[in-house]
Amino acid sequence: MNQLGLYCSRCSARLPFRYQDMKCTCGGTLLVDYDLEHLSRTFKKEALQNRYPSMWRYKELLPVSNPDCIITLGEGWTPLLRMQKWEQKLPIRQLWIKREEQNPTGSFKSRGFSVAVSLLKESGATKAAVPSNGNAAGALAAYASRAGLTSTVFIPLDCPPLIVEECPLYGAETYLVDGLIHDAAAIIEAGKQEQGWVNVGTLKEPGRVEGKKTMGLELAEQLGWTFPDVIIYPTGGGSGIIGMWKAYHELKALGWIDGPMPRFVCVQEAGCQPIVDGLSPPAVREQTGTGEANPTGMRVPHPPDLPLILSIVKQSGGTALALSKEQIAEATRSLGAQGISSSPEGSATWAGMLALCDSGWLRPTDSVVLFNTSHAMKYAKLGTTPSLPTIKSYADYKSLSR
Amino acid sequence: MNQLGLYCSRCSARLPFRYQDMKCTCGGTLLVDYDLEHLSRTFKKEALQNRYPSMWRYKELLPVSNPDCIITLGEGWTPLLRMQKWEQKLPIRQLWIKREEQNPTGSFKSRGFSVAVSLLKESGATKAAVPSNGNAAGALAAYASRAGLTSTVFIPLDCPPLIVEECPLYGAETYLVDGLIHDAAAIIEAGKQEQGWVNVGTLKEPGRVEGKKTMGLELAEQLGWTFPDVIIYPTGGGSGIIGMWKAYHELKALGWIDGPMPRFVCVQEAGCQPIVDGLSPPAVREQTGTGEANPTGMRVPHPPDLPLILSIVKQSGGTALALSKEQIAEATRSLGAQGISSSPEGSATWAGMLALCDSGWLRPTDSVVLFNTSHAMKYAKLGTTPSLPTIKSYADYKSLSR
Ligand SMILES: Cc1ncc(COP(=O)(O)O)c(C=O)c1O
Ligand SMILES: Cc1ncc(COP(=O)(O)O)c(C=O)c1O
Repeated sequence: MNQLGLYCSRCSARLPFRYQDMKCTCGGTLLVDYDLEHLSRTFKKEALQNRYPSMWRYKELLPVSNPDCIITLGEGWTPLLRMQKWEQKLPIRQLWIKREEQNPTGSFKSRGFSVAVSLLKESGATKAAVPSNGNAAGALAAYASRAGLTSTVFIPLDCPPLIVEECPLYGAETYLVDGLIHDAAAIIEAGKQEQGWVNVGTLKEPGRVEGKKTMGLELAEQLGWTFPDVIIYPTGGGSGIIGMWKAYHELKALGWIDGPMPRFVCVQEAGCQPIVDGLSPPAVREQTGTGEANPTGMRVPHPPDLPLILSIVKQSGGTALALSKEQIAEATRSLGAQGISSSPEGSATWAGMLALCDSGWLRPTDSVVLFNTSHAMKYAKLGTTPSLPTIKSYADYKSLSR
Repeated sequence: MNQLGLYCSRCSARLPFRYQDMKCTCGGTLLVDYDLEHLSRTFKKEALQNRYPSMWRYKELLPVSNPDCIITLGEGWTPLLRMQKWEQKLPIRQLWIKREEQNPTGSFKSRGFSVAVSLLKESGATKAAVPSNGNAAGALAAYASRAGLTSTVFIPLDCPPLIVEECPLYGAETYLVDGLIHDAAAIIEAGKQEQGWVNVGTLKEPGRVEGKKTMGLELAEQLGWTFPDVIIYPTGGGSGIIGMWKAYHELKALGWIDGPMPRFVCVQEAGCQPIVDGLSPPAVREQTGTGEANPTGMRVPHPPDLPLILSIVKQSGGTALALSKEQIAEATRSLGAQGISSSPEGSATWAGMLALCDSGWLRPTDSVVLFNTSHAMKYAKLGTTPSLPTIKSYADYKSLSR
């Protein structure tokens, strides 16, 4: 048993551990508490050296008590790629991309659901449901099947069809919702009693934040136990930011790293930008554009704990910015031309980095990490094959090429 | 300089190293030769313990001499997933899946092209071309862009549209070919002089086999420096089988592993089955079926060195078998219901494993490794969204669900 219990991120109250309902009576979000003082004496970073490269190498900092309940599909320890050529062109010191699309379900959501589904297994639950803009639904479906649990997923109509298709492939009971993610969430809340569903939506249970925390732990280890100066992250519900911020507090408490925390930058889609607006309330509300990019993962108009995200961004000296669909689509092309397949959300981090170079917010001494949270191809539009030249011979080639 | 030169896999002739043209005058395939005797004294497996989990951890066994030329996108060290539940149901001892779809370009082809493009860089080449059933084209495109080289890719018309689309995204000049992969290859051969293309097709240059060799090295390391009893691999051009067989010979020569070699099993698509037919010439030729699976990666009617593949399969005590489109589609569903997204080629290894359990060819003492070489979603058919129920409320859900 690694975890001591839960603590409230708002009022600091301490409560016994539980598998569901992460709201404190004060309205704050409950997070998992570890005995970090004890761990700082018994758990040394050298212990990791001979462990397998998977997010479960940090098991002392994960809340699953029964190792037989760990449900794994090969998640975590994704590559951290250095972009040397761009470091020379841009006014920053270092640039890295964390390739989260290389997770087993093709997105960083694998991490959260590996922990969440392990906890469901440990708690004896058998039925899980999630409202999702797509990647979370696929991850729940895959991990639930691996664990032998049933899953039901509710996905807004406008989500990318390939991401939707993966859910029935992974064995989930799949519904499209004529509405946004909060409408999908309302369906689960209405039915959970009657259907026996455990709602594994953002911040509804303790596992997903803890799983995403491993992105922060891994990043620190991959950078030789240092913090980067800046993390740029495509933010929707916010559990990624919350998880990484928690990771860095825990690493400090363990005495494994010193120095200032990274500045957290949330990128959002212009027009659906509660974090941007929360930092500096806008005079005029921007409208979502009509370009080709469809970053549904960031499309969360009402994050479950907006004050917590805002306080992390502020405390860390970070910022938030909204990118247009055009900027995002352009970034996808730019990353593609460097050999990287990036989802619109991942591309938004590139667009955000460029904007923050332009504005001078990023400094010449900064090391910057971007999170590519999913694959470009998952967002392919069906029925729109690009027209490519078709040939039969080299003569055909010559007649077509310049 | 790790490599001594080249050797012929057929007549054993030794030649100096070169970057192109892997055909011996005897017709055999030239492979990279290392000073294994020297390495067996200087390179110990313990040296790997503190190295980063990437295929480049085996740099002593890779042919790139100038480390500055290594082109990486985060390839290799993919998860090896144990399928415990199925071990209990099936008459075999152990069952593992090597998740090659978690490579940076979504398929195992990342490995070969990481090495091939590094060698292009080292040799000073600037333009590469490849005939491909899709995944190789995407991998060349991505690695060439990362290296700053130009790439031209030729892909048969019937290949999956999403795989085709990735090539222009990664910056390749992309052509569809009205024909099969050997027709695409003929176009490159006809134009390479005039266009200055280096042909990086299967067995045309030394890097791809060496890159795929790392699948075998990694598998041995992940299994604690032991061989599995059986490897089931979806075989097209054959460089994967050739690479892994070479890996195991090198590991034996280094003294890192003992014991019998794994039995290599090639799975193919019924109707395009040169290896199956080469092992036991058929009375009647099977026809390709008309089911939904489209395993284009295995669709190579004329592998460049069929005799070499046949001799590996025979020497290792392996076999080959052809699976119908229906068997393959059923295997995709079966793996999906276990939380694994598998391409038709990867699914064929599952179907093959089941068939070999049924026939009694697999033994109760066997440990078996399947290679899932790519993602299911890359093969999605455009324009065929599955019809899923659309709802607005929990009442809608109830009226639809049983
Ligand atoms: C690809 C992608 N990126 C980013 C996000 C947002 O992540 P978070 O909920 O951690 O803010 C999502 C969430 O759906 C996503 O699917
Ligand atoms: C997904 C997939 N599996 C298997 C193969 C066949 O591999 P090999 O050329 O190593 O025989 C290919 C080749 O295109 C492929 O794309």
